[in-house]
Amino acid sequence: MSKKAIVLVSGGLDSATVLAIAKAEGYECYALSFDYGQRHNAELQAAAQIASRFGAVEHKVIRLNLDSIGGSALTDSNIAVPVDGVSDSIPVTYVPARNTVFLSLALGWAEVVGALDIFIGVNAVDYSGYPDCRPAFISAFQQLANVATKAGVTGSQFQIHTPLIDLHKHEIIARGLELSVDYGLTVSCYQANAQGEACGVCDACRLRAAGFNALTVTDPTRYA
Amino acid sequence: MSKKAIVLVSGGLDSATVLAIAKAEGYECYALSFDYGQRHNAELQAAAQIASRFGAVEHKVIRLNLDSIGGSALTDSNIAVPVDGVSDSIPVTYVPARNTVFLSLALGWAEVVGALDIFIGVNAVDYSGYPDCRPAFISAFQQLANVATKAGVTGSQFQIHTPLIDLHKHEIIARGLELSVDYGLTVSCYQANAQGEACGVCDACRLRAAGFNALTVTDPTRYA
Repeated sequence: MSKKAIVLVSGGLDSATVLAIAKAEGYECYALSFDYGQRHNAELQAAAQIASRFGAVEHKVIRLNLDSIGGSALTDSNIAVPVDGVSDSIPVTYVPARNTVFLSLALGWAEVVGALDIFIGVNAVDYSGYPDCRPAFISAFQQLANVATKAGVTGSQFQIHTPLIDLHKHEIIARGLELSVDYGLTVSCYQANAQGEACGVCDACRLRAAGFNALTVTDPTRYA
Repeated sequence: MSKKAIVLVSGGLDSATVLAIAKAEGYECYALSFDYGQRHNAELQAAAQIASRFGAVEHKVIRLNLDSIGGSALTDSNIAVPVDGVSDSIPVTYVPARNTVFLSLALGWAEVVGALDIFIGVNAVDYSGYPDCRPAFISAFQQLANVATKAGVTGSQFQIHTPLIDLHKHEIIARGLELSVDYGLTVSCYQANAQGEACGVCDACRLRAAGFNALTVTDPTRYA
């Protein structure tokens, strides 16, 4: 019997690669996305296509009005998305407690379907400024999961898988290409338009383009 | 300057008492409720009244379709609410990872308003069967909060306050009455009707009635 895993799928390049990795490791994958007041909806459409392409058992989208909390350029239209390069400090595109919230909901679904494995595409190389992308955060969440749940109190152990955490963008893309990920389906841009076309200047676009350049592979991104 | 706190307010007896305690301790309170597919909406109306009565700076309701995850009698209409007394095992009214999700969202709002204190009315006496009502869970969440956030990584310490965790129901009510909580505003029943009238037979109704009986105080609950 194959093991079940919850895989967080955003519609972006990283999580598409994670889904391919989880599938390659033999997991029966439950893809989870969030409609949390992102500026655009193109990435949720991309998430659905990616989940379908990689044979996810189910793709669930949880609605969650994080925009009512505010505090991030990704959910608050009063804060501009930066286009002047990645800095070392915590960026305004950081969504407060986002990965804590996403993993919590993944944990709830894991309990319902009987999964003990959760895959998330956090990356501590390009996102060193996000507190909730670091190994210390993942480790603390895993400890929490094991006291927070029915399964945990009865002795089962949850594992939070972060296969990309130490990889550079070009290494992520190389791994995905080995696993036949069609990156043309993915949307990375922080401010993609309704057709999923990228701006080319935000941090996410710059990181993605640099990754493809480093590999001398053609980037299938569609630019506006 | 008064300190800010996020206070989880469900509309029930316990969290109303917690809000009164936080206020009495001098906190500027931000009341947070969740519309998570509960069977009835009466408790959210109660939450709004309670937040207003205790002078919360703001009352925010976050919508969250936990019912799409299922797995609990409180969010899944296919699972019956038990009316045959509290058992020692994990009850079907347990909502998978609920307090993890709620505290995560409270943490996100705390980051935005600049609060380091979060109050939650968990209780390990009456809810010993819920993994996420135990001190070990709260402790693990507090550790997570301090690595998950901007504030945490810059050296500030979050505190998760659980003033009711060791109290019996009659002690909670006694504390609230000292602080002038109007329990007539609160709704405890798992299956209250649209007017906020209680069933009188579910676990939550039984625990509440026993608490008032033990104090020989009149219970202002309105029964259907």
